[in-house]
Amino acid sequence: VTAVSVTALAPLPEVRPGDDLAALVLDASDGLRDGDVLVLAHKVVSKAEGRLRRLPDVQPGQRAVALAAEHDKDPRAVQVVLDESEALIRAQRGVLICRTRHGFVCANAGVDASNAPDDETLVLLPQDPDASARALRAALRVRAGVAPAVVIADSFGRAWRHGQCDVAIGCAGLRPLEDWRGRADARGRELRATWIAVADEAAAAADLARTKDSRQPAVIVRGLGRHVSADDDGPGASAVVRPPEEDLFR
Amino acid sequence: VTAVSVTALAPLPEVRPGDDLAALVLDASDGLRDGDVLVLAHKVVSKAEGRLRRLPDVQPGQRAVALAAEHDKDPRAVQVVLDESEALIRAQRGVLICRTRHGFVCANAGVDASNAPDDETLVLLPQDPDASARALRAALRVRAGVAPAVVIADSFGRAWRHGQCDVAIGCAGLRPLEDWRGRADARGRELRATWIAVADEAAAAADLARTKDSRQPAVIVRGLGRHVSADDDGPGASAVVRPPEEDLFR
Repeated sequence: VTAVSVTALAPLPEVRPGDDLAALVLDASDGLRDGDVLVLAHKVVSKAEGRLRRLPDVQPGQRAVALAAEHDKDPRAVQVVLDESEALIRAQRGVLICRTRHGFVCANAGVDASNAPDDETLVLLPQDPDASARALRAALRVRAGVAPAVVIADSFGRAWRHGQCDVAIGCAGLRPLEDWRGRADARGRELRATWIAVADEAAAAADLARTKDSRQPAVIVRGLGRHVSADDDGPGASAVVRPPEEDLFR
Repeated sequence: VTAVSVTALAPLPEVRPGDDLAALVLDASDGLRDGDVLVLAHKVVSKAEGRLRRLPDVQPGQRAVALAAEHDKDPRAVQVVLDESEALIRAQRGVLICRTRHGFVCANAGVDASNAPDDETLVLLPQDPDASARALRAALRVRAGVAPAVVIADSFGRAWRHGQCDVAIGCAGLRPLEDWRGRADARGRELRATWIAVADEAAAAADLARTKDSRQPAVIVRGLGRHVSADDDGPGASAVVRPPEEDLFR
């Protein structure tokens, strides 16, 4: 029987810049295994890495002031969003949809006040979430002698559909995309377009095992060993970014 | 511990028009429970409902002939796609991105040759996938005295990101969207935008427990009882369709 289990680890304490996230995760778990996929809400990774901006330290520029006035937002928060963005895709009804410097398209460039350390602080996405995932995987290997795959997740809104699904913004050791193009279906017929976003599906599955107020940022997805590599960290979630010129779904 | 398990049922036999899908699912399972979520790949639902088109029976119109010539496709298959579409969003490199009559945006209006009964037959999406999910749920209740939630899933490409994730195109008994807007995070701060696409995440989780050639269209997701209603079938997956005029993510 193919079976996958999804289990939230015990709540983590409030994570601060410089904290050893691998140690916190291991303390919260009762044993990680090779072949596991550890999915982490990006916020704890960002906090451990100090990817925070304090609003009192932000000097908004002209564009931020204009956008903030138009959308009834704090100009300092808008400046932080612009600083994280490669492009502003759309600004409407108080929401800024941005392409981040990583190439991800999401609301407010992933900058978020919820579950922040205090009301004056915004949490950014990690600078290089694939590198964060690789570093965490390496630290787990050193500390515990196991190398679960690591996925760093965030909740993104989607085109065409309401609501958000968690997706992978970083990963190490998990195949982000499983390519069935050219392979055969159960009848032997070629599957022409099938290309499964495994890391995004793992992130979505993990989101089902916690709630937004449970302080359970770490979730173990077990049963995906066929997608987990022992040594090679793989291309990471940056391989999932679709170049705009190839994008038919916008 | 919050935990979710995802288990593929035993393979189903090839499903034919008129087959009793509830009976086939119950035969393949070793017991469904209230609170379970039964996720079905849409193809078995479509086949049971006879949502098939035989290419020899299709008379392509002018527009289908022109599109087929431009994109090197079978004009009869293009006609079937157009018949299922409310709008053609984009046609490029042999792919037709369509808005279906249900409002879903996906490649080829969900019309698919893979895992079809033969090489001359195309499988369509169910006419009303929410009604299909409700009917299956009712049939399970009658036959087995349990009423798991039912999700009908398909693999959709996404804007901005490579690959496909399974999403819910129909559901009954599962809350499709969990609204945290106005509720509080772990620190008591309001979560302004959080609106979780639970049914889509359940579909994605289910996809992790089977492969595209395993003839395992039915998957049980257990542990989502808080999102499953006993009697009310809820609004269905049609509630997830985002009206184009509200869509900031395209």
